[in-house]
Amino acid sequence: MIDQLIERIKALGAPIVVGLDPTLEMIPERIVKGDSLESISMALYEFNCEIIDAIYDLVPAVKPQIAMYERYGINGLQAYVDTAKYARSKGLLVIGDIKRGDISSTAAAYATHIGGTMAEGKVMFPWPEDAVTLNPYLGSDSITPFLDVCGEQEKGIFLLVKTSNPGSGDLQDLPLISGKLVYEHIADLVSAWGKNYIGKYGYSKVGAVVGATFPEQGRKLREQLPHTFFLVPGYGAQGGSGKDLRGFFDKNGLGCIVNSSRGIIAAWKKEPHSDGCNVGHAARTAVIAMKEDLQGAF
Amino acid sequence: MIDQLIERIKALGAPIVVGLDPTLEMIPERIVKGDSLESISMALYEFNCEIIDAIYDLVPAVKPQIAMYERYGINGLQAYVDTAKYARSKGLLVIGDIKRGDISSTAAAYATHIGGTMAEGKVMFPWPEDAVTLNPYLGSDSITPFLDVCGEQEKGIFLLVKTSNPGSGDLQDLPLISGKLVYEHIADLVSAWGKNYIGKYGYSKVGAVVGATFPEQGRKLREQLPHTFFLVPGYGAQGGSGKDLRGFFDKNGLGCIVNSSRGIIAAWKKEPHSDGCNVGHAARTAVIAMKEDLQGAF
Repeated sequence: MIDQLIERIKALGAPIVVGLDPTLEMIPERIVKGDSLESISMALYEFNCEIIDAIYDLVPAVKPQIAMYERYGINGLQAYVDTAKYARSKGLLVIGDIKRGDISSTAAAYATHIGGTMAEGKVMFPWPEDAVTLNPYLGSDSITPFLDVCGEQEKGIFLLVKTSNPGSGDLQDLPLISGKLVYEHIADLVSAWGKNYIGKYGYSKVGAVVGATFPEQGRKLREQLPHTFFLVPGYGAQGGSGKDLRGFFDKNGLGCIVNSSRGIIAAWKKEPHSDGCNVGHAARTAVIAMKEDLQGAF
Repeated sequence: MIDQLIERIKALGAPIVVGLDPTLEMIPERIVKGDSLESISMALYEFNCEIIDAIYDLVPAVKPQIAMYERYGINGLQAYVDTAKYARSKGLLVIGDIKRGDISSTAAAYATHIGGTMAEGKVMFPWPEDAVTLNPYLGSDSITPFLDVCGEQEKGIFLLVKTSNPGSGDLQDLPLISGKLVYEHIADLVSAWGKNYIGKYGYSKVGAVVGATFPEQGRKLREQLPHTFFLVPGYGAQGGSGKDLRGFFDKNGLGCIVNSSRGIIAAWKKEPHSDGCNVGHAARTAVIAMKEDLQGAF
């Protein structure tokens, strides 16, 4: 998965992943056919399809945030699955932002997100994801089942290291007796977990989540983790911009993929007097502007 | 929720939560009608119903582990929801073991697990849970939306502090410059997050997950967190026993609820030559034995 991702980033000149995290407020009225869980979930899916149709030839990947679907229960999660399937049908890689983490036997169950599960006499993939995000709080045995999948298939994982939110420091920034901060220690673990899964471009299938809102920490982590690809949330709406991200990239302009969600999928709302028919056009324009902003960082 | 939980524990003399974490290997052949995702999911639900029917009058709560259902996709999650609904219909509290954790706007979406979501013109509860487990790695803004729900409704949360698995030490046991270990620091945060949500028995709606496999750490955390109720996994199959747990309780014999999953729901497999018709009976016997084991700890 990491080699494919890097090849697509190079071909498109766009280290960009579009975050498919819709809220009802972002969806034009014309798409929302009712206020039941089923109607809302269908609206999430239809909205996502419009976004995907507008951007699939510009970016390598999308990142649906599962919480935005899980909030509407089973119907919502069906919209998550359908969105992931549709994105893949258009040639996009799907990074499931699921942030799961649990003890070994349970982690093995979660690992079916990327590894598939036995059903109907064969391996079935109920979750059409190419990679997922994971939470490292439970330690190595919570990651092992995912590493096993990475060893067998073209799949990937991104471990939370330094997240983009204001509260990330409550735990992640605490100084350890070892001289490292907590997130720097996690970074070392991520590097160790990933060392057997390095692809042809020098990056591992085991990546890290590093928030755009912490540019100095991102720069140092880039040095600390030469073989770890970064998934970078927090660009745009959360405050990060292209020039802040220079340090997240390696000397070849690779090494990370930057997520934007609201800045792209809700771009249509920024156009004055919009009738809600410009969802796709505004998203496409926002992706192109983001691409230029990131290229301008070099 | 915490007051209800404590009242039921007292009435039943059973600080026990039954973990509904079935794997296919635990389910008798007679229940499994096929190997499609749908058939397997229906089998999970039917198996859970047999367990619930056998134990609902003995224990205050069940704890379905969502990963065991999520592995079978949408069908599996429907079985999770149906299980939770059935458990509630029998008067049980439902602790959803979901271990979610994300940044603020996303955390608000996950908080619908306990807080409900707007649909059909009113608040709907697509996830029939009374409490959920959460992961603290992302810090305070990942918890706030859940605290808001705890302030408005009879709901609860349990934050991962010291988990039961062997790898828990990879991060949780690291010594900080402050003199505390990482999990002790998290414990302080949990105490602070919960201080405005303390019920009539002196315990907060904001609880902690503390593994039975670390009795010394559990004892110290009990002293450190006089107002924090503990959800204790790792009893039985993972290695903890009643005598190890004495320190997890307060001087009144309250302060924690102990989870057993495999030891109860797979108890039928330990009976020689079982034909699989003894699922409920074996589970009930295992719960009674666990109750005696825990009472013997005092």
